[in-house]
Amino acid sequence: MRVAEIDINPAQLDAYEAAAKEEIESAVRVEPGGLALYAASDKDNPAHVIVFEIYADADAYKAHLETPHFRKYKATTLDMVKFLKLLETIPIGLGAKAK
Amino acid sequence: MRVAEIDINPAQLDAYEAAAKEEIESAVRVEPGGLALYAASDKDNPAHVIVFEIYADADAYKAHLETPHFRKYKATTLDMVKFLKLLETIPIGLGAKAK
Repeated sequence: MRVAEIDINPAQLDAYEAAAKEEIESAVRVEPGGLALYAASDKDNPAHVIVFEIYADADAYKAHLETPHFRKYKATTLDMVKFLKLLETIPIGLGAKAK
Repeated sequence: MRVAEIDINPAQLDAYEAAAKEEIESAVRVEPGGLALYAASDKDNPAHVIVFEIYADADAYKAHLETPHFRKYKATTLDMVKFLKLLETIPIGLGAKAK
């Protein structure tokens, strides 16, 4: 499980959100180990984005970094991102309703 | 969808994690609008905890704050929490595999 905090150039926020949405949709659909990805922006500061990612294991995360949709997202958003902080995390509790 | 960043008293981290785990398990099981709750600690600084919560709507979040399990968690952890930052967020993309 990983957390990213990202500051986006406010002028490019719409374009960033479109790219992130597409990337998330692809990752969850295509990657066997891409269990959940959530991106949301801070209501008081929409240019501040927090991404939460859950992968089956470390290999699934490595595989994610090599996928065409992630590479496209990375290339598209490179100039939109002003600041990126990646946190590696240890799960305490993960609960989600079965669909 | 809400994000909380919490700094825990390191000496009480185990007790905090037990309380958070129990609270998450109850919320997802008991609350109709408690869709997903994830808590994880920063690998480089385990006393820094990030919580991600997805509720069906604002009323579901209000209801959550009144539940016995949340009140118990809040009372138990009150003295363990050194710093708490609550972010209200706007979803950009939410993707999870069906179980």
